[in-house]
Amino acid sequence: MQEALETEALSILVKSLITYKGRIVGTPAAYYPESNNDITDKNKKVTKDKLNYDQVFIRDFVPVALLFLIKGEFDVKLDEKKEVHVKGKEIVKNFLEVTLELHQQERAKSFLNTGRVLMPASFKIKKVGGKEKLEPDFGQHAIARVTPVDSSLWWILLLRAYWKATGNTNLVHRIDFQEGIRLILELCFSDRFDREPTLLVPDGACMIDRRMGIYGYPLEIQVLFYAALRAADELMDRKNHSNKDIIPAIKERLVELANHMRDEYWMDMEALNKTYQYNVEEYGETAINKYNIYASSIPYANLDDWLPEDGGYLIGNIGPSQMDFRFFAVGNLMSIISSLVTNKQAIEIMNLIEERRKELIGQMPFKICYAAIEDQEWKIVTGCDPKNSPWSYHNGGSWPVLMWMWAAAARKVGEEEYINFASAVIETAGKRLQKDRWPEYYDGHTGHLIGREARRNQTWTCAGYLLAKELLSEVGAKHLKLISFEDYSEPKAKQSKQKQSA
Amino acid sequence: MQEALETEALSILVKSLITYKGRIVGTPAAYYPESNNDITDKNKKVTKDKLNYDQVFIRDFVPVALLFLIKGEFDVKLDEKKEVHVKGKEIVKNFLEVTLELHQQERAKSFLNTGRVLMPASFKIKKVGGKEKLEPDFGQHAIARVTPVDSSLWWILLLRAYWKATGNTNLVHRIDFQEGIRLILELCFSDRFDREPTLLVPDGACMIDRRMGIYGYPLEIQVLFYAALRAADELMDRKNHSNKDIIPAIKERLVELANHMRDEYWMDMEALNKTYQYNVEEYGETAINKYNIYASSIPYANLDDWLPEDGGYLIGNIGPSQMDFRFFAVGNLMSIISSLVTNKQAIEIMNLIEERRKELIGQMPFKICYAAIEDQEWKIVTGCDPKNSPWSYHNGGSWPVLMWMWAAAARKVGEEEYINFASAVIETAGKRLQKDRWPEYYDGHTGHLIGREARRNQTWTCAGYLLAKELLSEVGAKHLKLISFEDYSEPKAKQSKQKQSA
Repeated sequence: MQEALETEALSILVKSLITYKGRIVGTPAAYYPESNNDITDKNKKVTKDKLNYDQVFIRDFVPVALLFLIKGEFDVKLDEKKEVHVKGKEIVKNFLEVTLELHQQERAKSFLNTGRVLMPASFKIKKVGGKEKLEPDFGQHAIARVTPVDSSLWWILLLRAYWKATGNTNLVHRIDFQEGIRLILELCFSDRFDREPTLLVPDGACMIDRRMGIYGYPLEIQVLFYAALRAADELMDRKNHSNKDIIPAIKERLVELANHMRDEYWMDMEALNKTYQYNVEEYGETAINKYNIYASSIPYANLDDWLPEDGGYLIGNIGPSQMDFRFFAVGNLMSIISSLVTNKQAIEIMNLIEERRKELIGQMPFKICYAAIEDQEWKIVTGCDPKNSPWSYHNGGSWPVLMWMWAAAARKVGEEEYINFASAVIETAGKRLQKDRWPEYYDGHTGHLIGREARRNQTWTCAGYLLAKELLSEVGAKHLKLISFEDYSEPKAKQSKQKQSA
Repeated sequence: MQEALETEALSILVKSLITYKGRIVGTPAAYYPESNNDITDKNKKVTKDKLNYDQVFIRDFVPVALLFLIKGEFDVKLDEKKEVHVKGKEIVKNFLEVTLELHQQERAKSFLNTGRVLMPASFKIKKVGGKEKLEPDFGQHAIARVTPVDSSLWWILLLRAYWKATGNTNLVHRIDFQEGIRLILELCFSDRFDREPTLLVPDGACMIDRRMGIYGYPLEIQVLFYAALRAADELMDRKNHSNKDIIPAIKERLVELANHMRDEYWMDMEALNKTYQYNVEEYGETAINKYNIYASSIPYANLDDWLPEDGGYLIGNIGPSQMDFRFFAVGNLMSIISSLVTNKQAIEIMNLIEERRKELIGQMPFKICYAAIEDQEWKIVTGCDPKNSPWSYHNGGSWPVLMWMWAAAARKVGEEEYINFASAVIETAGKRLQKDRWPEYYDGHTGHLIGREARRNQTWTCAGYLLAKELLSEVGAKHLKLISFEDYSEPKAKQSKQKQSA
């Protein structure tokens, strides 16, 4: 039974694989059988082209790729008669090479006065005069022209995972790959107006790719930036002369960024109490209330109810007179996996998740963002976006793909309690996903409702579930290393027992 | 009577002048007699140091400097007995040199992984061991750590005004000045994530240096960027080999930026009607509703009342699902002065100002931002900032310094109607300013209230008034050239009669 479910999820991934010039290069956002227009439900006919679910999204393919790296070469039954053999690692290599090619094309077009988004949000394969051609979307096609800052960062993380899984240092040290990493980092390190160690990005620059009040210095980007720096630090060839300036810059930025995030973004009862005592309008380098936060902007009553004594989390954003107290899942879970947070903080995040399971997990792990913004605030902050209406989609919706990050975080912290809890919830969730035909997201306070505009056979839903299962399995700790990072800046002596068991 | 008023304003500026190593280098934000702690009112004692009104702010000094450039060498009576001789142009030169020095210091400290804000928001003169030392604030001291992006842009504009006033090409072409301009532009042109021709900046990066919903691509910065590019295009030494890449980049960006602003930021009844018909969720390069704006986020009823048939303006900001319909004075007035808008658009902005005089001018020119954000929106957008409470300070307050920009815009468009209107209003306002002892800003719907936290003897209030008078005088057109730019991208044949009379 369990096996049948997993086979179904895997077969969706395999059936959706697309080829470019004879090589398998990735999976589109949703699997969409050629013979059937119905990727939503029976009553709605939508054309594949219009919805653009035929594109390979970089961020969507990451969990598929991680799963393929873990599974390596495998056979899967597509139906009663058909079984295929899949070379998982080769597909990931193809994907990395193809996206690097797009990156290089983009680079050639760049010059002093245009932007340079190095990795597209997605690409599709077009037939032009009988020839296959890649058509990338760097934001110029995207709804609302949002900028995919996260793509470049995920790409580095995936390259490192591939290297961890295969030991193929030759590929990683290839001149073009080294240059690819360097160009991404140089863009992150480029001269800018502000003096923060974080990255200033436009609105909607990550998985939440619509207006949702995540302009400025959103958590998700900062955590992915940290993880990408950690990965690059491992991947950069010390013998490559072109890397000599970037390597010390990576090290320095890592320290600054980690300190900043742990200080400014961390929220628990102690940190909250500190804000409650803030003076305002402080001038000078010694200011305690650095960002001039007004206590009346902080929802103390809600947080007093919600924040457990032994829990904490990274807030969503910080800026002048702004603290975003929403819990964003990608940032918090990836902060554990990447060791951006300390071991103690990681445990506190896991505690908060467990104690606030009703809100954060509910019927389907995991809420992408909690709480939803509602009423007037929704109007102002989203610009009246009906797709992100309260408790829907990014605005308090539940995304099965996030299961893998939750599983990885539980595995990283390493306590049996967290692993068992995640395992039990994900087991149940899997059955529901199969019954609902693998939708992209769920809506409602507790995730009872299948997302109003959710496609079915969503590839990262299938992969998120399967990858979570792998990470929670007996040998999960072995797989974790593809994506996780050891503690970085704390002295060894301070490491807690959780770390040792991970 | 009129003369006495002007002498008083000028004497405040002259008395406030501060020296550094024997050279006069600028005016602090407010004049503050050594013998008197009272720079607010009789009931409030404030210490100068704490308020930090002893700093020379780059953006505050600009109107003082422009006035000094216009007046050249002049005598002013400080009291019955004392008359002093002021060398206006020399002071501006000193200021430009001193700030360039700070810029160079900052540059030396920069490296791959830190920000590089080239011009500070302000500097003060500190005595360290008997020696004078400049202490700049690049944002590290500022309340809420806001980043002064506008300083560098104003600096270029002031350098160009100095050059126009003196013809001193030797100074402008000096290696260090050329490098100064180039570094500022390189920072503006540096690689970045987005593909917009506009500049992505953090919150509070300009005259509105507090959280006010002006994150992303705020109008003021874009217009100053355009004007600074225009200025740099004139200032760059063609014979300086180091400039060879930057000169074509300036030209290209100017065109892209002007087209973008005129298309995307321009609002009049026709543009508003266009938004009313928008489709949403458009994907692809041919999308009409590029930023995916939802009609329900647009205050049509208010705009239908407020937008005159023959008027228009540049909106405050644009981004994913975001259009900021507030009228921001600096951006709109400077867009006329710099010829960022077309001649036709310039006239429409002046029409709007005249027809909406009650709201935009009221009892004291000029509202920095109209309308104020109120209630829940104020809480969300400002983070409950009490200084920016509705109809106060940046949030719907009236700033006398803006009189000079209004006067310059009227002069630029050149119609007698606009010039006479501005002259009459500014004449009356001057008397009020003198009576109220030159406060920085006024509060209330129509600017009846002296700003709750306004200092008196504010230097840019005095300068704003005096400069407006100069620009509106018989020989105003001659002075205008210091700050204005001729039409750039429209063919000569299309120029309207307004342009000819300017």
